[in-house]
Amino acid sequence: MTESTSQAPSRRSLLGWGGAGLALGAAAAGGAAAVARTGDEPRSDAGAAVEFHGPHQAGIATPVQDRLHFAAFDVTTEDRAAFVELLKEWTVAARRMTAGRAVGDGAYGGPAEAPPDDTGEALGLKPSRLTLTVGFGPSLFGRFGLAGQRPDALVELPKFAGDNLDRDRSGGDLCVQACADDPQVAVHAIRNLARIGFGRVVVRWSQLGFGKTSSTTPDAQTPRNLFGFKDGTRNISGTEKDRLEKFVWAGEKDGPAWMAGGSYLVARRIRMHIETWDRTSLQEQEDIFGRDKGEGAPVGKAKERDEPFLKAMKPDAHVRLAHPDTNAGATILRRGYSFTDGTDGLGRLDAGLFFLAFQRDPRTGFIPIQRSLARDSLNEYIQHVGSAVFAVPPGVRDQDDWWGRTLFSEEA
Amino acid sequence: MTESTSQAPSRRSLLGWGGAGLALGAAAAGGAAAVARTGDEPRSDAGAAVEFHGPHQAGIATPVQDRLHFAAFDVTTEDRAAFVELLKEWTVAARRMTAGRAVGDGAYGGPAEAPPDDTGEALGLKPSRLTLTVGFGPSLFGRFGLAGQRPDALVELPKFAGDNLDRDRSGGDLCVQACADDPQVAVHAIRNLARIGFGRVVVRWSQLGFGKTSSTTPDAQTPRNLFGFKDGTRNISGTEKDRLEKFVWAGEKDGPAWMAGGSYLVARRIRMHIETWDRTSLQEQEDIFGRDKGEGAPVGKAKERDEPFLKAMKPDAHVRLAHPDTNAGATILRRGYSFTDGTDGLGRLDAGLFFLAFQRDPRTGFIPIQRSLARDSLNEYIQHVGSAVFAVPPGVRDQDDWWGRTLFSEEA
Ligand code: HEM
Ligand code: HEM
Repeated sequence: MTESTSQAPSRRSLLGWGGAGLALGAAAAGGAAAVARTGDEPRSDAGAAVEFHGPHQAGIATPVQDRLHFAAFDVTTEDRAAFVELLKEWTVAARRMTAGRAVGDGAYGGPAEAPPDDTGEALGLKPSRLTLTVGFGPSLFGRFGLAGQRPDALVELPKFAGDNLDRDRSGGDLCVQACADDPQVAVHAIRNLARIGFGRVVVRWSQLGFGKTSSTTPDAQTPRNLFGFKDGTRNISGTEKDRLEKFVWAGEKDGPAWMAGGSYLVARRIRMHIETWDRTSLQEQEDIFGRDKGEGAPVGKAKERDEPFLKAMKPDAHVRLAHPDTNAGATILRRGYSFTDGTDGLGRLDAGLFFLAFQRDPRTGFIPIQRSLARDSLNEYIQHVGSAVFAVPPGVRDQDDWWGRTLFSEEA
Repeated sequence: MTESTSQAPSRRSLLGWGGAGLALGAAAAGGAAAVARTGDEPRSDAGAAVEFHGPHQAGIATPVQDRLHFAAFDVTTEDRAAFVELLKEWTVAARRMTAGRAVGDGAYGGPAEAPPDDTGEALGLKPSRLTLTVGFGPSLFGRFGLAGQRPDALVELPKFAGDNLDRDRSGGDLCVQACADDPQVAVHAIRNLARIGFGRVVVRWSQLGFGKTSSTTPDAQTPRNLFGFKDGTRNISGTEKDRLEKFVWAGEKDGPAWMAGGSYLVARRIRMHIETWDRTSLQEQEDIFGRDKGEGAPVGKAKERDEPFLKAMKPDAHVRLAHPDTNAGATILRRGYSFTDGTDGLGRLDAGLFFLAFQRDPRTGFIPIQRSLARDSLNEYIQHVGSAVFAVPPGVRDQDDWWGRTLFSEEA
């Protein structure tokens, strides 16, 4: 490392790096940029912050933001108390970051001799509707004496037809989903949680999503996926309390009490072979989905929001096979993002859909739908290459509550 | 492939997929969403479109957008005429896309039997200040009888101390830099150019950038890089005509006439070891750059825009070593982006800076500065893993002009 003592005069001693040192510093410097630098004020436009507290975690039924950074972590400590302490520290940091504040209590940084509390790259950016959503994978319940509390619904996903899963993009003891309208804000959040987790958890895999493919606000313009189709038209919307209760939130009687108000998240990295798709005729593309490309209307109907008439679609059309009527009512809340991660060595873009779906129980949600999609004509153009499932605990109620309290405060 | 004829009624025949078919379709459907779907209208808010035509290509001195998709291509045809035809087709598509229009002449799509002209995922999105900037790599001049026109300034970059270059992320016969405020618009543009290039060029590597690290508009808030520091403070601004002429634009007397009004682009993928950085003290971080973290002021000064006093900095400080005074006046226009591409298999984020710099001549721009940075204390935290250099031809003058005309219309 470079010498950390310096002969040269240091700016730090004059100005400070925010927080407590700032009042003095700003005065000395003529009052420059105080508010933007304290880290204790919202980054600006507090209206663009999403409430962190509530019966459910934000990032599920709340309006879908434009960008995603998702990380799966593995636990590296054997010490239950240390892990619980991490969940508490994460909660404090998440509460601050979602409000547009920097990590760190009051002061933005700390003393010059220590690493700063916050890595700094989101300073000056808006809250950007950042939500942070935590989930616990099946493997976590093999640790810390948690086996008895594993929900029945938290099954390992079966192998599906066509799966070509990469271990290095699958699984994980826990996950954090960071969604924001500014990707720098989402990346900053994951990176700071990873930093705080040092010595207790390590990132197993992570995924950047550049464009939302679903919406939970039906009045908004439906986003388009990388095949150019409107996606999320018939998604559960964040205001449909009944459908949320029925299909998304785990109820008190569903399983362990600690999951009441929580949900289950299925994540699938789905490669999309866009070069092949782009050489496919419009007719065939529309047949595959069972909707038209321009308007997004179901076959035989005029408007995007018209009810699909399944029998008018080809038997192997995606919408027909994914529709609740084909799957004993199975319904999920989709919240996926498009990704592109460079090229695959064959000159093709390594692009696709990072599929995220929330549901009350994967056994009556994702699993039957994905089984039905075994016959999907879309399969010629896609491949599932990563997979994970997580139990997403209920929301953090108030300032004293923390992520996972209902699980870790119960008797084992 | 799935059968492309269908027994089921097709939406396409009623509504059309935009353009010419639309007037009829919209009438039949009750006038739904006409403007948003024609592809011939700007996506909306024409004010957010950047002019494509001019003496210089956009995307260099024009204001830096938030997001990037960059692609390097290799040529796969031996046929000069076919390659020239591609450049013309690309120009037409680029002109439309930067104006917020879909690819395709008038109509958005084509007949149902053919693949659509545009892949569709940017339909309904704003122009988002999209700029598309093309460049020609040294290897292109080994083709098509171009050897005699290769500019002296288009040197292969020498090996620098610390380089650890990945062939698969380096080089390329040509490149396209797509910058936009919406990443979906940038990704859409590269993807459609790649599609148009089928059979003539193939993507060699590509890079997504999620956050700008430099600005060419000094009045705007300076963005922060992944080490949390303001970056681009002393960059050349887009309004400094004198410095642009002196340091960025190739002049008539500099080299081949076809490059007059062009520039040279150096691209470097620089991995940043953020986990190590995050455990480094604030004092050391500030010593390494020679600026403070909060305000971005040079050592011993109060404000970001104050002139750096180099002798107050440590001898191995980044700003001291990169400053023109240390390098016989060498000055470049930086236009880089932060990236994060998942994890590296060791639980560390594969994140860094995709460094992009424009200059009149790399031999008096990037090369001497990078040589000087051999002593940089920052090197302990970064590594250059990809590299490329391109001659960026002058701008497209008008509707009849095309990318590369000055090169390909000259006698060989
Ligand atoms: C790359 C892969 C995929 C693409 C491109 C895709 C695209 C689409 C599109 C364009 C629609 C129609 C619009 C809408 O209602 O949202 C749709 C509907 C739907 N998709 Fe997918 N999808 C993919 C994978 C999946 C997977 C893996 C599942 C779950 C196993 C799924 C479940 C659904 C459901 C439930 C619907 C709504 C059906 C209805 O209620 O009408 N999709 N998808
Ligand atoms: C990950 C790698 C790098 C990081 C994090 C980084 C960061 C910074 C920062 C924070 C500044 C001070 C603010 C400013 O004036 O922009 C700066 C200045 C500068 N950097 Fe870098 N830089 C990196 C690599 C490079 C490279 C490879 C070059 C060129 C070979 C370069 C050239 C410059 C120049 C010319 C300046 C302005 C110096 C002045 O005029 O005061 N940087 N850089």
